[in-house]
Amino acid sequence: MNNLSRRNFLGMVGAAGGSSAIYKTSLAMGLLADTGPKAMLDLQQPGSEKKSVAILGAGIAGLTIAYELERAGYDCTIIEASHRIGGRNLTIRHGDIIDEMGQPQVCNFDDDPDLYFNAGPARLPGHHKRVLHYCKAFNIPLQIKANVNRAAYIHETDHFGGKPIRVAEYIADARGFMSELLSKAVDKNAFDQPLSEEDQVRMREFAKIYGDLDENGHYKGTSRAGYASGGFLEHGELKQPIEFSALLDSNFWAGGLSRTENFDWGEPLMEAVGGMDNIVKGFVRNIKSPITVNAQVQSIQLGNDGVDVYYNHKGERKKLHADFCFNSIPSHLMKGIPNNFSKDYNDGLVALGPGNFFKLGLQMKERFWEREGIYGGITSTNQRIRQIWYPSHGIQHQKGVVLGAYTFWGQSNFFERLTPQERIRYAGECGDKIHKGYSDYIEAGVSVPWGRMNHMMGCGSRMAPENEEKYFELIRQPEGKHYMVGDQVSFHSSWQEGAFASAEYALLDMDKRVRAASAVEGKG
Amino acid sequence: MNNLSRRNFLGMVGAAGGSSAIYKTSLAMGLLADTGPKAMLDLQQPGSEKKSVAILGAGIAGLTIAYELERAGYDCTIIEASHRIGGRNLTIRHGDIIDEMGQPQVCNFDDDPDLYFNAGPARLPGHHKRVLHYCKAFNIPLQIKANVNRAAYIHETDHFGGKPIRVAEYIADARGFMSELLSKAVDKNAFDQPLSEEDQVRMREFAKIYGDLDENGHYKGTSRAGYASGGFLEHGELKQPIEFSALLDSNFWAGGLSRTENFDWGEPLMEAVGGMDNIVKGFVRNIKSPITVNAQVQSIQLGNDGVDVYYNHKGERKKLHADFCFNSIPSHLMKGIPNNFSKDYNDGLVALGPGNFFKLGLQMKERFWEREGIYGGITSTNQRIRQIWYPSHGIQHQKGVVLGAYTFWGQSNFFERLTPQERIRYAGECGDKIHKGYSDYIEAGVSVPWGRMNHMMGCGSRMAPENEEKYFELIRQPEGKHYMVGDQVSFHSSWQEGAFASAEYALLDMDKRVRAASAVEGKG
Repeated sequence: MNNLSRRNFLGMVGAAGGSSAIYKTSLAMGLLADTGPKAMLDLQQPGSEKKSVAILGAGIAGLTIAYELERAGYDCTIIEASHRIGGRNLTIRHGDIIDEMGQPQVCNFDDDPDLYFNAGPARLPGHHKRVLHYCKAFNIPLQIKANVNRAAYIHETDHFGGKPIRVAEYIADARGFMSELLSKAVDKNAFDQPLSEEDQVRMREFAKIYGDLDENGHYKGTSRAGYASGGFLEHGELKQPIEFSALLDSNFWAGGLSRTENFDWGEPLMEAVGGMDNIVKGFVRNIKSPITVNAQVQSIQLGNDGVDVYYNHKGERKKLHADFCFNSIPSHLMKGIPNNFSKDYNDGLVALGPGNFFKLGLQMKERFWEREGIYGGITSTNQRIRQIWYPSHGIQHQKGVVLGAYTFWGQSNFFERLTPQERIRYAGECGDKIHKGYSDYIEAGVSVPWGRMNHMMGCGSRMAPENEEKYFELIRQPEGKHYMVGDQVSFHSSWQEGAFASAEYALLDMDKRVRAASAVEGKG
Repeated sequence: MNNLSRRNFLGMVGAAGGSSAIYKTSLAMGLLADTGPKAMLDLQQPGSEKKSVAILGAGIAGLTIAYELERAGYDCTIIEASHRIGGRNLTIRHGDIIDEMGQPQVCNFDDDPDLYFNAGPARLPGHHKRVLHYCKAFNIPLQIKANVNRAAYIHETDHFGGKPIRVAEYIADARGFMSELLSKAVDKNAFDQPLSEEDQVRMREFAKIYGDLDENGHYKGTSRAGYASGGFLEHGELKQPIEFSALLDSNFWAGGLSRTENFDWGEPLMEAVGGMDNIVKGFVRNIKSPITVNAQVQSIQLGNDGVDVYYNHKGERKKLHADFCFNSIPSHLMKGIPNNFSKDYNDGLVALGPGNFFKLGLQMKERFWEREGIYGGITSTNQRIRQIWYPSHGIQHQKGVVLGAYTFWGQSNFFERLTPQERIRYAGECGDKIHKGYSDYIEAGVSVPWGRMNHMMGCGSRMAPENEEKYFELIRQPEGKHYMVGDQVSFHSSWQEGAFASAEYALLDMDKRVRAASAVEGKG
């Protein structure tokens, strides 16, 4: 078998038995080197007696912990409640099962490597150094992802006659009017501390450039909004600015306009070529510890010599004993798992409440948005779907998968109550108000309501501010030899970087204890 | 030979004989279909008697004209003064010759498909429909390119202590201070037409969100600038805002800050995967007409039955007669080419003056900028290099090619006077002020001063506004059966889309004449 057909074979194994099967077959076929890339953390070797670690959950945090501890010589066992490895790092492609409670879906996209969407994390900012470290270590190709698209739309059903407005136009006009007002305020020297004459001149100039004002400090439109006509064969003709009152009356400035200023969403963002789950595959390629899927934790008991984890696997109750336990089970699910943690610790876990993001992917038979000049990026709407994301990959191919809804809270509750088919129809109707004939392009669709996904029932957990002060520090500290981990135990919940950071925190804390203990032993 | 090794073979042919050789060999090997993709324009077939066309210059305009007219049944001949096809669409890789007057360079980058830079056009906006049409027709893979990078720097030697400031920080602080001033002006109702109470409330809210002000309308810093510390394992701590007076005193707001609002530079931009010259290769694959390189036009004579073009090829004077002539020779070079055009037309050509962009590419032995959190995009500086562009491709690979200078006018004049080696050294010294150890990473470098490139001696030609009114329309109209074309004869000079638009304009004008003539013949 040459390398190519080996990998095809692995694909078949994967389809039949999941990633864990792939991993084991890979090992058997000698495709994986014995030593993978280097660890990120410099952890102490556990000494002559090999320490054992139980890792609950095979998401980003759990995989990171297994990867790092394996390299430090620990004996790791990973158990995962769902049928798959990766947690909320989930890329949906042809044939994938979406394990929604009571109504599982099978992805009916064409079998085409281009036709996928990232149902979980979908954006990598350049300052998320931990996730980028592992991408580099695992040779995961990255590409630039469009997030802001000035050619995409702002759409509000009750403003601008319900017509979508190009983002560039809205931004340019908002800057223009705001700068004109600022310029007038400078003329009247209307500030607490009057500006010096020199500063007045500079402020007027600043406003003029910031808003593209005319020589009298008035905003009369700008080429920044795109031309109404011309620009190539004829002189460009400026667009009529949106009325300032209509702009102020609309809602985009109160939300979407500044959302793109968020540091985590600042240009440029990146994505893994071919799907974000390549990060998961990178870990699976480089982890030797056994990963057991379909294994649901039933009880966690702290003892004097470590932690006992009882779990159900294929109808059998099993016990896993380990010196340390790292637990990324969603905190709100811990309420239903018997344990002997302290009351405070359990109270803290309950205080960490789940979010319920919802994403819906639609396979479109034509990339009609590209004919409108939109290549990647996001359209915002006040409809329940909230956003339409256009793919940054597969540009100018025939088909593409659009993210037809990406919602939080109330909107997610709405979609959760619908059947998968109803969600597609509803999202199509919303899309029709933005793109002519949108619904007609839909060939297939699947939806991922994280609040209803088996073994998760939520995502992006956060504490209310009053609880944060009371409980956050408590639950990120170990309870005996048990650590709660995951993005939920970080200040960057719902980002992969949060999961990496949490894993790092717990690992370094454990390492400190192991080092301290071995120092004591050394003295003994 | 299977397809893969055929293409390898073509690569070798290309190295030996240039693209034209590839094209002919491809034809001989049956790799090219007889009919390529469809034409963009619906041009009239020239009738029973095949019309001949002389195309002067094998840049984007010339190639487009050949492609479209071939498909309409015309007999095209392309002659090109330089040693290569593509004009200013030029991607520089290992071994390429940079034909600068008096000091030719050979690119000493490693022989690696990742290590290149686009010395001419480098950005494709989504509304440049013509260039995107041809990319699609030729199956040229495109990817998103980072243009703005908020993690990149603003650097002014005489401000902020000469230290580079992150773009995100500058933008966030500028928005903050400006919004605070606006909010104060609302309090004092300092506008020409006083705002209603309702509008006052909305404007205050607008300012608050736009600038991320506190509840009292003050700007005290924002997470949009990135945190000073924390954010993942600890609560994020805000950065101290830049002093407003320091911000106003700096120059970035007067130029760079708003430059990114330019419609042609708005997110997201794209680029051809592997180099912008894949567009040229797409044309070469799909054009059958002969392209003769190293053929310099010596004289253009309009006659009653068409146009005579005299040119020099390998020391021989040759004559090309054609029914129509499309001429993309840089207008300022036409002064030195004898012709029998009208005085006005020649005056118009002279009025179209050349620009002199300068680009310098540096092969860096490590992608050190990625360690600073910069993935693609642009750093701005007030030094002569003006910009540093980080590559959007090859993310996290070992090496990368940085655009170490991209300048216009005065700065280009400065670099033009240096030797290639001096330019690299100078650009390295500028880079050192921004990135620690920048110079030490430089392994190789080449520079492309368009103002000194043989057979071009300029780029991005434009008319002064007073000339535009007098001459622009004149020179884009045909002189007899001779058409001036290229980005120079468009309102989008220095963009490929300008060249496509100009070609389209000339083709449609010619088509109208051919249709009119054939209608007359039909009546006769």
